[in-house]
Amino acid sequence: MNLSQRAQRAPASPIRKLVPLADAARARGRRVFHLNIGQPDIPTPPVMWEALRKAQIDVLSYSPSGGMAEFRAALQRYYRRHGVELAPEHFIVTTAGSEAILFALAAVCDPGDEVIVSEPLYANYNGYGALLDLRIVPVTAAPEAGYALPPREALEARVTPRTRALLLCNPCNPTGHVYARGELETAIAFVRKHDLFIIVDEVYREFFYGDDAPVPILALPEIRERAVMVDSLSKRFSVCGARIGCLASYNEELISAALKFAQARLSPPTLGQIMGAAALELPPTYYAEVIEEYRRRRDAVIEELAQMPGVLCRAPQGAFYVMAKLPVPDAEDFVRWLLQDFEVDRETTMLAPGEGFYATPGAGRSEVRIAYVLAEEKLRRAMRIIGAGLRAYQPSAATSARTP
Amino acid sequence: MNLSQRAQRAPASPIRKLVPLADAARARGRRVFHLNIGQPDIPTPPVMWEALRKAQIDVLSYSPSGGMAEFRAALQRYYRRHGVELAPEHFIVTTAGSEAILFALAAVCDPGDEVIVSEPLYANYNGYGALLDLRIVPVTAAPEAGYALPPREALEARVTPRTRALLLCNPCNPTGHVYARGELETAIAFVRKHDLFIIVDEVYREFFYGDDAPVPILALPEIRERAVMVDSLSKRFSVCGARIGCLASYNEELISAALKFAQARLSPPTLGQIMGAAALELPPTYYAEVIEEYRRRRDAVIEELAQMPGVLCRAPQGAFYVMAKLPVPDAEDFVRWLLQDFEVDRETTMLAPGEGFYATPGAGRSEVRIAYVLAEEKLRRAMRIIGAGLRAYQPSAATSARTP
Repeated sequence: MNLSQRAQRAPASPIRKLVPLADAARARGRRVFHLNIGQPDIPTPPVMWEALRKAQIDVLSYSPSGGMAEFRAALQRYYRRHGVELAPEHFIVTTAGSEAILFALAAVCDPGDEVIVSEPLYANYNGYGALLDLRIVPVTAAPEAGYALPPREALEARVTPRTRALLLCNPCNPTGHVYARGELETAIAFVRKHDLFIIVDEVYREFFYGDDAPVPILALPEIRERAVMVDSLSKRFSVCGARIGCLASYNEELISAALKFAQARLSPPTLGQIMGAAALELPPTYYAEVIEEYRRRRDAVIEELAQMPGVLCRAPQGAFYVMAKLPVPDAEDFVRWLLQDFEVDRETTMLAPGEGFYATPGAGRSEVRIAYVLAEEKLRRAMRIIGAGLRAYQPSAATSARTP
Repeated sequence: MNLSQRAQRAPASPIRKLVPLADAARARGRRVFHLNIGQPDIPTPPVMWEALRKAQIDVLSYSPSGGMAEFRAALQRYYRRHGVELAPEHFIVTTAGSEAILFALAAVCDPGDEVIVSEPLYANYNGYGALLDLRIVPVTAAPEAGYALPPREALEARVTPRTRALLLCNPCNPTGHVYARGELETAIAFVRKHDLFIIVDEVYREFFYGDDAPVPILALPEIRERAVMVDSLSKRFSVCGARIGCLASYNEELISAALKFAQARLSPPTLGQIMGAAALELPPTYYAEVIEEYRRRRDAVIEELAQMPGVLCRAPQGAFYVMAKLPVPDAEDFVRWLLQDFEVDRETTMLAPGEGFYATPGAGRSEVRIAYVLAEEKLRRAMRIIGAGLRAYQPSAATSARTP
């Protein structure tokens, strides 16, 4: 009566596993700044709440497995504005980006199959890899190259007969890298050569700080049948709790398979779709204001990090995360210590240890992911706690003893 | 660049795959009575909407992966009233019962492992079996025995070295059978002998029409470490679109594994939990009224079926479904025909073909599942359309040619 191997292999989320320590800190009267999780503090747009109030629902019923007609139509208009024309057979509504990842991986991989992912990577790809019993095969992106797509040779070196797909996140959680068109072209040449799918997680599409918007993978006509897009409203409209996303591909067979998985879970959440239909009609000024706010936050985080001796990082071009290498042997021990043993004026900061964002064992041990999801004044206070912590921290004996 | 085997094996939902035909019927001006899906028409309790209005949410944020504190506390009080004491480490909140099934199966089964299920079974177990690449091994329950647990010898005959669990639905969707304490004791002796888990889907717990309430599997002390409960608010409170459920077990290792899967998908829907916390405090009169309504519906369906020559069924003791054997060679063809070619006063009825509720190939071909989820007057009209349809229907040539 043992649990499954996949249950035993499933990693605890690096973003969430230390939450009990944060709860304990709060119970001791500490305020905890959460830079560990991409939970924006931007208010959910009022039009979304209005849509909910106006909905006049008598019975909160299932939606169609592939999503409600009104919301699907709003998604089509949204993607059209991004240069992507989707017919009804090209997409389904999912229970957030998480479920879109689940369905995409399940549609292309059998147990034992492999997906090449540029690391540092979104930690939950590892979780879904365990759930579906597939292998997440990392190819490490260099911090000094701004976490750009690793060179073609590095990708080639990872290909085996079990390789089924290349998975990218653009803009990238956790690195903030935005893939340039040239990088996507390299990726496309690679997947065409080896007859693979390319799955691109575009949930941070709107969050970029350079001049060029990220290119949607479905806007590239040369790989229509291979490209799969994962998307979510969570970050875009500050509705992480609504659990609404989307899976899209011009490969109709793939979407049709995903729809069968979607039928097994019956329906994505209905209320989130009602709210989402309203949000998707927000004008460009909504996005511009939000991005401007995140740009200020990014600049503040980078400015504060620059003042911490021994800390290495680069200004991210997109999303709202930065990976930083700290001058500590084990960042998880440091994060635990911040929560358990450190404070500045009864406040402390929670970060996500970097190791969980790598699939290569032992990699990222000295790194953390910082989510700049708080307003500038709080963010600077949270960052200064990290700086003060780094000055005060003594690695524990237990840490030195910890094996990779 | 083929899709995965699991994608190809995934069954289309028998409950939903014919929805496009229903949509087409509506487009032609027909009214369609939906007896194909367990979507109750009972109004969502007003206290749930009030809770949502009062919530004053600024940012619709993630909930903890295992559920919000207030909702979890309400769940604990609810289960206590059913004789089940759950400590915080014994359960997690899930995205409806569907996700609870996914996590339960993934926690106990690796690819190729087997789960014994009494059939007719809830069709989506097959879908999750495909997604997780495990085998749903059916043991057929006899209609003439009221779909009771098949005899011990039949269960024994299905055991292999890969068997990991017995999965039951109590009260049963689609048969309406309520497992008596004696049957559960047989099941328990069986799983103890073979060192298996027993997973029980109890989403219809409140819906029973006899004197004895279904016994929660977690209320049986002799198998604390083996028993896993799947639950959902969807039917109980007519909130199928809220997507809120629960996975519980005294096996803390199992819940801890499920929590890792839950962390990979970050959070169950937040709004559903806020509404659910209010619903779980509803008084016993709420349930009594709902059950009385369903009892009237059940009686109406059985009365109508009794008047149709050649139709075989039994009065279900629980849930809100009845399996009926129709005097047709292929019930799916009949269901398609009802939607495409038949009407009574511009109205027709949609049913779920029975075949998808079996894992044994070819079984259930002449059966349908009827969900009695409409008010009595509509329900009788919907049933009389079936009766008139049976009198008029001529099996198509295509049907006779269809291979199992």
